[in-house]
Amino acid sequence: MRHILFPFLLTLAIFFPAFAADAPVSDDSASCLECHLSLHPGIASGWHQSRMSKTTPKTAKELPENNRRVSYEQIPQELAEVVVGCAECHTLNPEKHKDSFEHNGYRVHVVVTPQDCSTCHPVEAGQFEKNIMSHAYGNLENNPIFQDLAKTVTGIQSLRNMTMTLSDPDEDTLSDACRQCHGTFVDVKGFAEKETSYGDMTFPVLTGWPNQGVGRINPDGSKGSCSACHTRHEFAIEMARKPYTCSQCHKGPDVPAYKVYEVSKHGNIHSALADRWDFEAVPWKVGEDITGPTCATCHVSLLVNAEEEVVAARTHQMNDRLPWRIFGLIYAHPHPKSPDTTIIRNKAGLPLPTELTGEPSAEYLIDEDERKARRSAMEQVCLSCHSAAWVQGHFARYENTIRKTNEMTLTATGLLVSAWEKGAAKGLSEKDSIFNEAIEKKWVEQWLFYANSTRYSSAMIGADYGVFADGRWYMSKNLQEMFDWLHFKMKGK
Amino acid sequence: MRHILFPFLLTLAIFFPAFAADAPVSDDSASCLECHLSLHPGIASGWHQSRMSKTTPKTAKELPENNRRVSYEQIPQELAEVVVGCAECHTLNPEKHKDSFEHNGYRVHVVVTPQDCSTCHPVEAGQFEKNIMSHAYGNLENNPIFQDLAKTVTGIQSLRNMTMTLSDPDEDTLSDACRQCHGTFVDVKGFAEKETSYGDMTFPVLTGWPNQGVGRINPDGSKGSCSACHTRHEFAIEMARKPYTCSQCHKGPDVPAYKVYEVSKHGNIHSALADRWDFEAVPWKVGEDITGPTCATCHVSLLVNAEEEVVAARTHQMNDRLPWRIFGLIYAHPHPKSPDTTIIRNKAGLPLPTELTGEPSAEYLIDEDERKARRSAMEQVCLSCHSAAWVQGHFARYENTIRKTNEMTLTATGLLVSAWEKGAAKGLSEKDSIFNEAIEKKWVEQWLFYANSTRYSSAMIGADYGVFADGRWYMSKNLQEMFDWLHFKMKGK
Amino acid sequence: MRHILFPFLLTLAIFFPAFAADAPVSDDSASCLECHLSLHPGIASGWHQSRMSKTTPKTAKELPENNRRVSYEQIPQELAEVVVGCAECHTLNPEKHKDSFEHNGYRVHVVVTPQDCSTCHPVEAGQFEKNIMSHAYGNLENNPIFQDLAKTVTGIQSLRNMTMTLSDPDEDTLSDACRQCHGTFVDVKGFAEKETSYGDMTFPVLTGWPNQGVGRINPDGSKGSCSACHTRHEFAIEMARKPYTCSQCHKGPDVPAYKVYEVSKHGNIHSALADRWDFEAVPWKVGEDITGPTCATCHVSLLVNAEEEVVAARTHQMNDRLPWRIFGLIYAHPHPKSPDTTIIRNKAGLPLPTELTGEPSAEYLIDEDERKARRSAMEQVCLSCHSAAWVQGHFARYENTIRKTNEMTLTATGLLVSAWEKGAAKGLSEKDSIFNEAIEKKWVEQWLFYANSTRYSSAMIGADYGVFADGRWYMSKNLQEMFDWLHFKMKGK
Repeated sequence: MRHILFPFLLTLAIFFPAFAADAPVSDDSASCLECHLSLHPGIASGWHQSRMSKTTPKTAKELPENNRRVSYEQIPQELAEVVVGCAECHTLNPEKHKDSFEHNGYRVHVVVTPQDCSTCHPVEAGQFEKNIMSHAYGNLENNPIFQDLAKTVTGIQSLRNMTMTLSDPDEDTLSDACRQCHGTFVDVKGFAEKETSYGDMTFPVLTGWPNQGVGRINPDGSKGSCSACHTRHEFAIEMARKPYTCSQCHKGPDVPAYKVYEVSKHGNIHSALADRWDFEAVPWKVGEDITGPTCATCHVSLLVNAEEEVVAARTHQMNDRLPWRIFGLIYAHPHPKSPDTTIIRNKAGLPLPTELTGEPSAEYLIDEDERKARRSAMEQVCLSCHSAAWVQGHFARYENTIRKTNEMTLTATGLLVSAWEKGAAKGLSEKDSIFNEAIEKKWVEQWLFYANSTRYSSAMIGADYGVFADGRWYMSKNLQEMFDWLHFKMKGK
Repeated sequence: MRHILFPFLLTLAIFFPAFAADAPVSDDSASCLECHLSLHPGIASGWHQSRMSKTTPKTAKELPENNRRVSYEQIPQELAEVVVGCAECHTLNPEKHKDSFEHNGYRVHVVVTPQDCSTCHPVEAGQFEKNIMSHAYGNLENNPIFQDLAKTVTGIQSLRNMTMTLSDPDEDTLSDACRQCHGTFVDVKGFAEKETSYGDMTFPVLTGWPNQGVGRINPDGSKGSCSACHTRHEFAIEMARKPYTCSQCHKGPDVPAYKVYEVSKHGNIHSALADRWDFEAVPWKVGEDITGPTCATCHVSLLVNAEEEVVAARTHQMNDRLPWRIFGLIYAHPHPKSPDTTIIRNKAGLPLPTELTGEPSAEYLIDEDERKARRSAMEQVCLSCHSAAWVQGHFARYENTIRKTNEMTLTATGLLVSAWEKGAAKGLSEKDSIFNEAIEKKWVEQWLFYANSTRYSSAMIGADYGVFADGRWYMSKNLQEMFDWLHFKMKGK
Repeated sequence: MRHILFPFLLTLAIFFPAFAADAPVSDDSASCLECHLSLHPGIASGWHQSRMSKTTPKTAKELPENNRRVSYEQIPQELAEVVVGCAECHTLNPEKHKDSFEHNGYRVHVVVTPQDCSTCHPVEAGQFEKNIMSHAYGNLENNPIFQDLAKTVTGIQSLRNMTMTLSDPDEDTLSDACRQCHGTFVDVKGFAEKETSYGDMTFPVLTGWPNQGVGRINPDGSKGSCSACHTRHEFAIEMARKPYTCSQCHKGPDVPAYKVYEVSKHGNIHSALADRWDFEAVPWKVGEDITGPTCATCHVSLLVNAEEEVVAARTHQMNDRLPWRIFGLIYAHPHPKSPDTTIIRNKAGLPLPTELTGEPSAEYLIDEDERKARRSAMEQVCLSCHSAAWVQGHFARYENTIRKTNEMTLTATGLLVSAWEKGAAKGLSEKDSIFNEAIEKKWVEQWLFYANSTRYSSAMIGADYGVFADGRWYMSKNLQEMFDWLHFKMKGK
């Protein structure tokens, strides 16, 4: 079939001069490109600029271990010796893909999944399965408390006869809100014929599409989306390593990681000097490739020192250099053992990692040894540029802040419980949402915004994010406002 | 006169080596530079780095149509064959310029206007006249409802005997507030003699100066300022195409376009990879010059695909790829037909594009056919990098979010009207401002901040801007607080 | 000793090819690097990339005056002719350093201070002593009013029997909050033996460590930290000149300088075009090295025009081009004469630069002549790119905004005083904190967030930061909410 493709490949070579490289594009992928090159020039040239389009898995495997970006033991011969093109991913594992469909003689699927990527990157896919992010859909959807929160945030409130009612959010709203980051459930509703530039064709009709959330449920049953961070179709490691990628989901007041990083010394170094850094090098050599950390440096990447010794092993679990979970929940607490947090039950029987008093649901959380191991893994990264006393001083202060912010949350919880007890608001015992009334929303902001922000500021030296920018100022002000609300509400009672 | 200038041009050539180029600087502009080069080195070298200083309009016109940056049919001979220097712009159309003044033998004016620029760029100037932005001054100043809002925001509140009074804002405050973006009225108050390094000289005294708002009213009667986006005196297309330019006016909570873009996948691609892009190329080739969109890509620029076919025509109308107007007004609604929105009257006789119930003032707004055409124009851009199913899914979700956010605004409006009816606040019928009391301000935030933010997040996949960062969380919380405020206010009544 | 070092220096040359330069590393510093190169590769290579590692103080001194980065008259011979390495800074002035300790045959100290840096940079160190920033620790810690504010923000609130109590913040919390920017008190608590890769060693144990706040109190008695802006160990002037450095402390709602700059025309120019600028050039040539200003351009750097004439002299006092102090205090006011603001007393005897009515405590503040001189110094910078009329119009508007925002603060203060008088809140006369109750916190936000933001927006044309983004909208809304709070509180009384 190669001779038939010749004029097309010539065209390719004209548009993309570097295409006439040694690494061969498979006939199947070349066939895809015949139409899609002009249909979606952005996709085609994104891919063309990627390493995927220039390297074969075989070549990638032959590199020394620390330089390797693939982790497979064995892959099929027909994949090994061609570059990773359209067909290599979009026709993989057709039997597993409910979204596979007949398309010009191929069994093609729309949604490329971690299971597909694991063909060449099984170690990373395995780590990502242990990453709490890969469970972001289920952890939200299958936890009744979070469902209640999601409903009160995204449902439509109506006013009738001076009474507010709340209706359930529709699917499109959920996909447009929480699930942008948490991921949607992508399923095949059916197949439909559509008009195209090449005549009528049949395509699958998908629920929850488009979506690239980290916890997306895929039509092959797998969880997550590698392209959440490794943006299609360049899949540039440069991009995944830059902090902007993390900022897509970690910038809001509930999880201000990027905002804090941005004003930290580390963020400042990145903003000012990163144009001299090498974001492509594998492994990443501290001091040489980079002179300050990005998110990936501390949490993900394989780092080596000047003598090529490993400072930190690559991980896609993300939290294995982290003892504490500081955001999202009522109190900061040790990281859960399992990425599936729906299995957690506190003593009160609630699916929460702590009691309402802050006491950890210890059996579901990592123990002290594991916390020490994780902190030590992170410290190895810090020590590349900081003395031992610096690092110890930093973490002592950070862990103190975790305790103190939890104390402030306890005070807010006390006010909330008082409001419930006094009948100023309706709580758990009345089977009413604990997130719908004004004082309940203030309570949520106390931990979800202000305590979180303060802890992030402490973790990364984010200055004002621990004081006036969603930090301690707001923790202290919010308590006074909760107190006054209760006072106003009770007047005349 | 050229021989007189010789020593000066030599000086120029020393400071700016590239100056000894082929394209000739006019004698008049050289004469300007004699003093202004050292008086304002930043202006002179900005201009010197610009394309304007290196190309003549004649050469610019000779390019193939899609490569052209000028759109004139005919210009005067004396302008065509010199580069566009100081004199070429600042002495154009002196008879129209009230700010023209005698200056060392020239009739010079201070404010270069779209009318001046239209000498070489008539098509763009014509589009900009249809751009709602060019009417930003009048649309704000001549709409009594917006005037009321502006007054309550910028006026000075005083406390006397426990009564709050509001005085009208002064002109300087207005210029410093709304009019930074909307533009000022630049008029000639008179002429005054001033001491300068070259002795006493006479200059016009201008109202509302300095200002570069998009809707500025100019001393030649024209509207707007090209330098709002094409920053003087480099006029770099690179800068206009980068998202930072739009962020000058589109970053606040009332119009968080840039903030949402920044954390979107598109913004992430830009932040991470744009240093490899070509921001100068005309036309802009998708996939080759850029691998992700900036604001200009979707809303303004002439785009072509790999085969040089036009994907989107250049426009300076800005909204002709947009069916819906999602910010600034109480409810999202179809774009107005006329850029002059002061002509709009809803059924209640108010200068608003919808009723207080959200029903569109249809006769003043684009109809369904036009909306389809505009959406289709935008979709052509999307399709460069996304499949048809992706694009359709995206827009279905977006239009659902427009409806749902409007529903939440309706609920807020219901609470406000109740407050008016119950006498808890004073409304339209009492001829009191509808923006001055606390509950009215909460109502404004419901649509101006939170519903807007949620829609922007939907439009560009801005994740948290649709949830916790000024998004649905605040829509839901604000309704509860409006409800409670009304309750507290009515206590004891 | 040089021969002993040979194999080590060879290693250095392999890791860092450029190391084999002419400028000699001292034996002492080479000795440090023997261990610390592999212990802290980030520190070593940061330094290696710095100018410090490549130039001797002698060579630095020999440059023409305007090109010089050192300002010493005389330094010891042994420092003059080697590059500035580890030992040159960390063993300076051992007799003054309480943190000096015996370390492998050297008297080493941990904390390098402005006093150490002043060996080569005495002029800059002297200016920095007059910089109000260098007093940031004492100005906060030794002013009882600010101490009260800090305590209410950082102390832990508890709820017991429906009463809120406030406990004093602990030292770690203060170091983690206000003192991240203001600086900590770094003292030597004692010495402790620690296990290291090279056996047990003794190190000083420091209070308030780590910290790089601008007002840090150092173990040698000096104030401040040069590395707050000149980030160790690259000390890159490029970084200090980029706006990200200032954003570390000047981004929050209390001092939104960077946020305003970011959306200003100046910030836009920087974001869009700065990759073409020369951030290393000394002096900084306006128009050639840069075509728009960063923070350093207007406030710090030595600027020259195209003819190499000085436009602005280098300063590390920071406020000597600034007549007005627009943030941090209740009312904007002329800058204090002394950087030690604890000496100020208003007529009421309070350590504040104005009365509660806004009247300046004039004898402690710069007079009109000095204000004119400072404004004129700033205007010289503006005039590089703007006409005189532009600059005058700008400053007239800005000073109007200072007056108007002060008027709005006066109204808020009137409401607060009413609340005290009516017994709705407890104020000064009851010896209660003036920052702990909800209405007091709203009063703080009026000036600390909203009036400040509005003034910054005016100063730098930050558009929405003067209107809807923490600007006039919030000034006006907050007054209404203070008014209502008072009303709700008094109900039934």
